[in-house]
Amino acid sequence: MTSVLITGASRGFGLALARELASRPASSIGKIFATARGDSAALNELAQKLPDRVVLVQLDVTNQDSIKKAAAEVQTKLGGKGLDVLINNAGVCQYVSGGVPTMDNLEESFTINVLGVHWVTREFLPLLKKGSLKKVANISTTMGSITLAGAAAALPAPAYKISKAAMNALTVQYALEFEKEGFSFIALCPGWLKTDLGGGDMADLTAEEGAKASLDILFKEGQVYNGQLPKVFVKGWEHPQEGRWNVYDGTNAPW
Amino acid sequence: MTSVLITGASRGFGLALARELASRPASSIGKIFATARGDSAALNELAQKLPDRVVLVQLDVTNQDSIKKAAAEVQTKLGGKGLDVLINNAGVCQYVSGGVPTMDNLEESFTINVLGVHWVTREFLPLLKKGSLKKVANISTTMGSITLAGAAAALPAPAYKISKAAMNALTVQYALEFEKEGFSFIALCPGWLKTDLGGGDMADLTAEEGAKASLDILFKEGQVYNGQLPKVFVKGWEHPQEGRWNVYDGTNAPW
Ligand SMILES: NC(=O)c1ccc[n+]([C@@H]2O[C@H](COP(=O)([O-])OP(=O)(O)OC[C@H]3O[C@@H](n4cnc5c(N)ncnc54)[C@H](OP(=O)(O)O)[C@@H]3O)[C@@H](O)[C@H]2O)c1
Ligand SMILES: NC(=O)c1ccc[n+]([C@@H]2O[C@H](COP(=O)([O-])OP(=O)(O)OC[C@H]3O[C@@H](n4cnc5c(N)ncnc54)[C@H](OP(=O)(O)O)[C@@H]3O)[C@@H](O)[C@H]2O)c1
Repeated sequence: MTSVLITGASRGFGLALARELASRPASSIGKIFATARGDSAALNELAQKLPDRVVLVQLDVTNQDSIKKAAAEVQTKLGGKGLDVLINNAGVCQYVSGGVPTMDNLEESFTINVLGVHWVTREFLPLLKKGSLKKVANISTTMGSITLAGAAAALPAPAYKISKAAMNALTVQYALEFEKEGFSFIALCPGWLKTDLGGGDMADLTAEEGAKASLDILFKEGQVYNGQLPKVFVKGWEHPQEGRWNVYDGTNAPW
Repeated sequence: MTSVLITGASRGFGLALARELASRPASSIGKIFATARGDSAALNELAQKLPDRVVLVQLDVTNQDSIKKAAAEVQTKLGGKGLDVLINNAGVCQYVSGGVPTMDNLEESFTINVLGVHWVTREFLPLLKKGSLKKVANISTTMGSITLAGAAAALPAPAYKISKAAMNALTVQYALEFEKEGFSFIALCPGWLKTDLGGGDMADLTAEEGAKASLDILFKEGQVYNGQLPKVFVKGWEHPQEGRWNVYDGTNAPW
């Protein structure tokens, strides 16, 4: 029975991950710690349906006190057991209107998308070390690939791209340090998703499709994705097609 | 007559760049704006020797007011001309003693090494647009290459590596936006240098060797290095050799 903690589960991809995990048999997925910084009606509903498995925890990834409190609460709820999986999903995508020089949100993007991931990870690390899977997925994006920046030039979100590149670098630092202890730190690209951040319906995949495909990567046995930037594999999207921007073929994106 | 502005010219590589530029004929290198956040005896000495060409300017890259004041001062001193070259050299390399989870200096490294570069660049951009070379060198390092992180694992400076990866991503954002206007934004790797940051004598190259080789890249005609991470070329260091860690063969490092 695998235990999982998700940040930013109030809506979007994080909520879809919580729902997908909750839909799986209790014999395979145990406690789901669905964390959010604020109240979420959708999350409350999920927890009411499955009160034994879905645990709501307050957690603002930019507030180290909030993270410490959340970790203590999760530790108690686990009753001596470890945490198997951490999904650092909370994130923001911030735009500029007048080009890169007008960017005034890089610091904020960095705090949420990079420092937040670092602070949450280190706080839950003792529980993860006691867990059996030792998997940490930092939700990333090909927008954070410096190599692919030319192809992504049309999206005016430099702070998003730069902060995700930094999050990727952070992921690799953890990956190298904890590989010998059996950990996998994965910079996981879930695909372009129909969420608020993804811009709604013009995106490729539903949050549910992205969640299912992301869990395929996360639960793949062994450490094959440690320190990598894997894209999801989605049937029907694995080959380039006219009029389509993206390919979801399960390969690793370049840094 | 090329004009150049250098940040962090008080010591180390920035000082070596100022000295190397000052040693070149006045017919090729004109005004050298040697900026520093504090007083530097070595820099004062250089300016006293060449008062017409070496202009000392106070500039703290983490303070936007200081940057604005410096830009106004440089504009006045240029008397209507543009600035040809900007070298974002100021930087810090911060260490951890207990592994990545103990890292508490990521925010500070990010402020100096990434936000500082962004703030300085955008403030001097109007002057650079009026310049004839339109070159911006952001001093980088192979330590900031995510691809090469495994080879660099022995250096316990995760905040340095992550912030330089972010600076590389920032460089590429500027490179893509301003390529059509004739700019080159270069994430330039000067080699491992015998400076305070480089750890002194155990490093490979003197700051002078690094400065000469870096200027070769910077003054290469055209935009061939725009949005790239070139390593310097140093004679005698261009091939792998036993007992040597680094190769300075003038190729681009991977992101
Ligand atoms: N959508 C895509 O196409 C796509 C593609 C690649 C990667 N991603 C990544 O997937 C992740 C989730 O994106 P999404 O599409 O689901 O975005 P979203 O719909 O905008 O949801 C963002 C989530 O992050 C939470 N969050 C933001 N700041 C937080 C903080 N300080 N503390 C805790 N939670 C915080 C939000 O909580 P509130 O409800 O309280 O605001 C919300 O739950 C992000 O990391 C994003 O970069 C998305
Ligand atoms: N040394 C190497 O092996 C090596 C290799 C690759 C890349 N680099 C890069 O080269 C650059 C220079 O490094 P270095 O070896 O010369 O280091 P250094 O000897 O430690 O000098 C650092 C310089 O940056 C300045 N600085 C720091 N914070 C500043 C701020 N807020 N505002 C203005 N200036 C500030 C320092 O000024 P103060 O004197 O006031 O402290 C000093 O002039 C760095 O970006 C470094 O990452 C160095």
